[in-house]
Amino acid sequence: MSDAPPLFAGINAAVLTPLKDDLSPDHTMLVRHCRWLLDNGCDGLGILGTTGEANSFSMRERIDIIEAVVKADVPTDRLMPGTGCCSLTESVTLTRVALEAGCKGVLMLPPFYYKNVSDDGLFAYFSTVIERVADPKARVYLYHFPQMSAVPFSHDLIERLLRAFPGVVRGVKDSSGDVANMKAMVARFPGFEVYTGSDEFLLPLLRAGGAGGITAASNINCRVGAKVFAGFKSPEADRQQEILTATRRVTTSVPPISGLKEIMARITGIAGWRNIRPPHLRLAREKADELYAKLLTTGVELPKAA
Amino acid sequence: MSDAPPLFAGINAAVLTPLKDDLSPDHTMLVRHCRWLLDNGCDGLGILGTTGEANSFSMRERIDIIEAVVKADVPTDRLMPGTGCCSLTESVTLTRVALEAGCKGVLMLPPFYYKNVSDDGLFAYFSTVIERVADPKARVYLYHFPQMSAVPFSHDLIERLLRAFPGVVRGVKDSSGDVANMKAMVARFPGFEVYTGSDEFLLPLLRAGGAGGITAASNINCRVGAKVFAGFKSPEADRQQEILTATRRVTTSVPPISGLKEIMARITGIAGWRNIRPPHLRLAREKADELYAKLLTTGVELPKAA
Repeated sequence: MSDAPPLFAGINAAVLTPLKDDLSPDHTMLVRHCRWLLDNGCDGLGILGTTGEANSFSMRERIDIIEAVVKADVPTDRLMPGTGCCSLTESVTLTRVALEAGCKGVLMLPPFYYKNVSDDGLFAYFSTVIERVADPKARVYLYHFPQMSAVPFSHDLIERLLRAFPGVVRGVKDSSGDVANMKAMVARFPGFEVYTGSDEFLLPLLRAGGAGGITAASNINCRVGAKVFAGFKSPEADRQQEILTATRRVTTSVPPISGLKEIMARITGIAGWRNIRPPHLRLAREKADELYAKLLTTGVELPKAA
Repeated sequence: MSDAPPLFAGINAAVLTPLKDDLSPDHTMLVRHCRWLLDNGCDGLGILGTTGEANSFSMRERIDIIEAVVKADVPTDRLMPGTGCCSLTESVTLTRVALEAGCKGVLMLPPFYYKNVSDDGLFAYFSTVIERVADPKARVYLYHFPQMSAVPFSHDLIERLLRAFPGVVRGVKDSSGDVANMKAMVARFPGFEVYTGSDEFLLPLLRAGGAGGITAASNINCRVGAKVFAGFKSPEADRQQEILTATRRVTTSVPPISGLKEIMARITGIAGWRNIRPPHLRLAREKADELYAKLLTTGVELPKAA
């Protein structure tokens, strides 16, 4: 545990990964999107997370994405790439790449293929990864997303990791949608940075002492999120939170990555934004029209096309 | 669909991967284990499956494993490596490696990170993989293991794949433990090769027209499995099936990969067999003693040390 301020305090986007027509990552569009997010209220960038389709890419493609973003001078102190893989050796490799590139933090999924593994097993896994990475600058955020990973982080496991790796294990992204779990971690682990993975809990979490959010909908609603964060002690924040919650509900009324890519295509006028790797699919035209119409009724202030 | 006989008819081991003390794959021990399994009743070898800890290895490590086994002259017409990854591009790469090495079939998990994906999305995924592999010699087996992958194969999805890729999509490994599901696939898809992933259903599946088994416990009980398969129409097969079922129950009374590696260490006298990648852990001594004692009560004929 640490008394340092949260390294990613505020609004972090779980950054979408634009793809070319052959479904390879489009680095140019990604860099432009990263800059656009920082210009529109994002404090940090969670590239290569679930929303970024990280698990649909090869190790080589992920390494190239991190290196392309850093080479284009996207500020490395804003970058928290996802580096947790199923494979022990790949988690080590990708974490090292991220740290060597200067990324301030990394977000780590548990090894998500194996189900019903013990806390002892998960502790051994993360210990081995951190020891093999062997970099005192490592700042590790745990990615708690039981609905997707099917491998939750228990509070006892977090406590063991915090004791074993103080200053290295820094926080959690909690995408469980269980705000009680988020608040319980804030209360139990002083200095531990708790980020919500769901926009609707941003304000209650901030008021309970949480660090902020790392969310999918931040790709399109970050201007609203920034207002909630900037004034979270004021009543105006409640009004902005309502808009944030409404946009989150709209974007999760369809498969979220497909929906967010559709919205980006409409904001930017770039049809290629709809490219997505299967098993995800682009939205059918009718669904897409309906989604965008619903989004506009929320009163969300969308970022302007770059 | 195809009228050809099953390519992997009989007993296939979901082959354990021996590791060195630094947790890297031990190719020499693996090759020896593969030969030993073929000498002890196995008809085929499902390397790089769940039991083989495939998802704990990097792409490079998996490629090296396939190439090492083939280079050591383990017969390629007995090999069905697991090549299904979360990542579209990695599934293509690994499948190509397996086919270029001459492996007769490949076992493909669905992209298992993403949950609640549609059959349309899974169809798009497998179609894209098979089209990109672009090898008419490809023989693809679907790996249905909802308890672990959390992404099941519906029969409608299988039907669409069989229509789209006749002769290429050849069969399924069903590790659901639901024998009714296995029998329903045999009945619905003539010529489709159905393999049980659980030893206890070997005999009922064979009698219903299934092709055989691809199982974890075959690493240690393949001599018994071979007797069931050889005489599955005879009453003696029922007696052998009881032993097979008993050994399966014993090996799944503990975390199965840990248990099977422990048993291999005892059969061979090689302590390194216990090496295992976290989140899996080796068994504590007391549990290990208990496991081995229980195994001996089943009457299983264990293979002799090589």
